[in-house]
Amino acid sequence: MDLQIELIKRAEMFNTYWQQYLRIKKPTKLYEASQHLPAAGGKRIRPFLTLTSCESVSGEKEKALPFAAGLELIHNFTLVHDDIMDHSLLRRNLPAVHVKFGEPAAILAGDLLFAKAFESLLEISVDFQTFKLLQQDFIDGIIAICEGQQLDMEFESRKTVTEQEYLNMIGKKTGALFELAGKGGALIGGGKPPEIAALQTYGMTLGLAFQIWDDYLDMSSTATTLGKDIGNDIRNGKKTLIAVHSLTHATGKDKKLLDDVFGNHAASEQEVTLVYGLFKELGSIEYAQHRALQLVNQAKDAIAIIKPSDAKELLFQLIEYTIQREK
Amino acid sequence: MDLQIELIKRAEMFNTYWQQYLRIKKPTKLYEASQHLPAAGGKRIRPFLTLTSCESVSGEKEKALPFAAGLELIHNFTLVHDDIMDHSLLRRNLPAVHVKFGEPAAILAGDLLFAKAFESLLEISVDFQTFKLLQQDFIDGIIAICEGQQLDMEFESRKTVTEQEYLNMIGKKTGALFELAGKGGALIGGGKPPEIAALQTYGMTLGLAFQIWDDYLDMSSTATTLGKDIGNDIRNGKKTLIAVHSLTHATGKDKKLLDDVFGNHAASEQEVTLVYGLFKELGSIEYAQHRALQLVNQAKDAIAIIKPSDAKELLFQLIEYTIQREK
Repeated sequence: MDLQIELIKRAEMFNTYWQQYLRIKKPTKLYEASQHLPAAGGKRIRPFLTLTSCESVSGEKEKALPFAAGLELIHNFTLVHDDIMDHSLLRRNLPAVHVKFGEPAAILAGDLLFAKAFESLLEISVDFQTFKLLQQDFIDGIIAICEGQQLDMEFESRKTVTEQEYLNMIGKKTGALFELAGKGGALIGGGKPPEIAALQTYGMTLGLAFQIWDDYLDMSSTATTLGKDIGNDIRNGKKTLIAVHSLTHATGKDKKLLDDVFGNHAASEQEVTLVYGLFKELGSIEYAQHRALQLVNQAKDAIAIIKPSDAKELLFQLIEYTIQREK
Repeated sequence: MDLQIELIKRAEMFNTYWQQYLRIKKPTKLYEASQHLPAAGGKRIRPFLTLTSCESVSGEKEKALPFAAGLELIHNFTLVHDDIMDHSLLRRNLPAVHVKFGEPAAILAGDLLFAKAFESLLEISVDFQTFKLLQQDFIDGIIAICEGQQLDMEFESRKTVTEQEYLNMIGKKTGALFELAGKGGALIGGGKPPEIAALQTYGMTLGLAFQIWDDYLDMSSTATTLGKDIGNDIRNGKKTLIAVHSLTHATGKDKKLLDDVFGNHAASEQEVTLVYGLFKELGSIEYAQHRALQLVNQAKDAIAIIKPSDAKELLFQLIEYTIQREK
């Protein structure tokens, strides 16, 4: 099976299914705001992971659609609210929801997607016991995302952050939904406890690798001038794994440069370029790449106990894809 | 039974129960922000209504505690987000959450309370079928609140709003949670379908009366100078029932005064006082009082089929309380 083809096929299947949660009603502005991001597409990686995890334990992927819809609704709700908090102007090459519809409608639009996510859970065909497990996991995942976003914001104003703290933060902010996708898909598919645990670990590990690879891609720009995002991240003191690595390893005048420039909103273009050079010099960019590769190997190992199938093959390909994609 | 004593007793019982949803964890700032309003107290009218509706159909009120907790968590989450949207600075005589903790933490704190509300639903001891009904109603209630808040904001920039549109808006913004409290309490208490419908209607009607009485109290100030809130509401063009009534009935120079001043952020103190005088002259303040009284009579009629009990007596007293309280 070819991952690119299956990603598209499953995204189409998913998009058809979740239309029911995205109907326009009155007041129109609220519903249009809530659909702005969902309608903008995306690769639907989380639904893909949910459906494919379900299949990998011999479940029917259709059965996992409502849970996948819930996860994607939550993912979109967090993007809407995060963009307000982070003052982001663009998302998926479109104006962020709060930019297009105003902040009040954006807050409500996120809340509406949040509520709809729990509606989708009610459509899962499982017994009450399993439902309760799924909903509790789902809630724990959402709470983790809130905690992760709060930590991410707090880290920006801190001088240093350890790698462990960074991993804990992205584990919550990004890993939790991937973990939930793997675990929930396997549970709905009727997986045995070790299989469910395996796909849960696979999801979390893949999520961490996914986020670190994002950090790596952002910083491995080959353009002669630095992208606006890199400059902003350096000026905002954004604690990516690359920054965390440099902050830990810099000494002497390098340390002083970071102290002066990293997290300094008034830093000049030249100073930012010097910090970027330091990230390279200290091997921090390579280190992030290396850690992402380590994690994808761990993700592979995690599903060793899953019996061979087309679905398992796709999960392997998804790992490769995570560290090959260029955004 | 005395309502004031029972309100306090049930609020204490409720507060003890829902502590479990309000524990401080890390990141501390997020959890402190989420507990700022819940810890500030309040009369817990919605939990009271839930527990007492449950009792009025011979259910044990303890069984309705988790649902009551869910409702109160949702109520608090909407207050946190609404205060951001409405730029409100104070709530329950304390700084609003976004004022004290900053807007990003306030958005997240609301989201956290939202997630916790669904956690509390999982604690209700009912069969799966009933659970699904309760959760769907709960979601519908939250969606109604989002729609109501959006309408309320949109109404501010509209020239006129009909009474029907106003009632639809407050039915969503305030009525929905009261309705849910009555219906959910009755359902959990094992009420028969006509009893459940009766308490649902009671809740909605009481909620409408509650909101209109709030509008009335805000405007029936006896102070010689107008309160800041009245002035702001007039300058913001807030569509209370009083304003809706005046906008519908004003003609000639009265209509021109409203056109010029109502919703005009730059209106002078004198102009605002003239509009306030017009509200009185046109009988709009009295009209709101009259409508609230009509609604509480409807609420009484709604529960005529509920068999007599201490709980029913409390529901009657709650009606009286709604139109006697002075904030």
